[in-house]
Amino acid sequence: MTRIDPHPDIGPLTFLIGTWRGRGRGVYPTIDSFAYTEEVVIEPLPKPVLRYGQRTAHADTGEPLHAEAGFFRLPDGVPELVIAQPTGIVECHAGVLEGQRLVLQSTVVGLTPSAAGHRVTDVERTIEVVDDVLRYSLAMAAVGQDLQVHLVAELTRV
Amino acid sequence: MTRIDPHPDIGPLTFLIGTWRGRGRGVYPTIDSFAYTEEVVIEPLPKPVLRYGQRTAHADTGEPLHAEAGFFRLPDGVPELVIAQPTGIVECHAGVLEGQRLVLQSTVVGLTPSAAGHRVTDVERTIEVVDDVLRYSLAMAAVGQDLQVHLVAELTRV
Repeated sequence: MTRIDPHPDIGPLTFLIGTWRGRGRGVYPTIDSFAYTEEVVIEPLPKPVLRYGQRTAHADTGEPLHAEAGFFRLPDGVPELVIAQPTGIVECHAGVLEGQRLVLQSTVVGLTPSAAGHRVTDVERTIEVVDDVLRYSLAMAAVGQDLQVHLVAELTRV
Repeated sequence: MTRIDPHPDIGPLTFLIGTWRGRGRGVYPTIDSFAYTEEVVIEPLPKPVLRYGQRTAHADTGEPLHAEAGFFRLPDGVPELVIAQPTGIVECHAGVLEGQRLVLQSTVVGLTPSAAGHRVTDVERTIEVVDDVLRYSLAMAAVGQDLQVHLVAELTRV
């Protein structure tokens, strides 16, 4: 695909652009905690949006775990994120941008009929880039549990 | 990326796998009709899902128009689709599969705060593959209009 220069209106989010690889840890009261490896790709499109994709695998076994696909937006300087997940979940987020730190709260969490049992009602995503390190945390309210940290990861630009 | 064999449980949807290019037409009471070119990529992941991405451009000017990213699922033989769009829209779909024809109805349509004005309330997507031709139509209820055809396209496997 042709390399695209980011649209000027997405400028404040261009610190996210890159291919990022690293490790994370997942915890939740209803599951065994687990370590994972992750690759995130964030790239500009011709319009003022960034395309987002990620894949994770179990850190010990290499077994594929999760994937996400979506887009970052910045209408009127307010960061937004839309995500689809192969587990049957979609999310809309809006939040605040402070330098290279993005704090996003879900405004919509949707589940396909077969995924209704996940009962995800609320997701918060924090993403911060310092130098060439991207750290994120994801808090989730699901399966009747209160909103709490589910994922924390640290990735390096490759 | 390593080439992945589709998971056996997604078998009935593997007819969708490929890179597809062609043209479509968009109509709606509230806009001027337009012709577009499109590329769709549908590829397997290690789990029983297919990753879906597409990009469109104006047929005359080449101006980039739309993009989508998401995943097809087939839990218990029921096709589902989750999609995120850079316009700030997410969709969950469920439907029926008849041979190589997929009829999907939205069960969730979510909009980011800045996209609320689109007022998309319902989306139906029909996708059919005959030989190496993929035809789809998309009907949409938005901006106060009843559910009606918005997009029709015909793509060829490349």
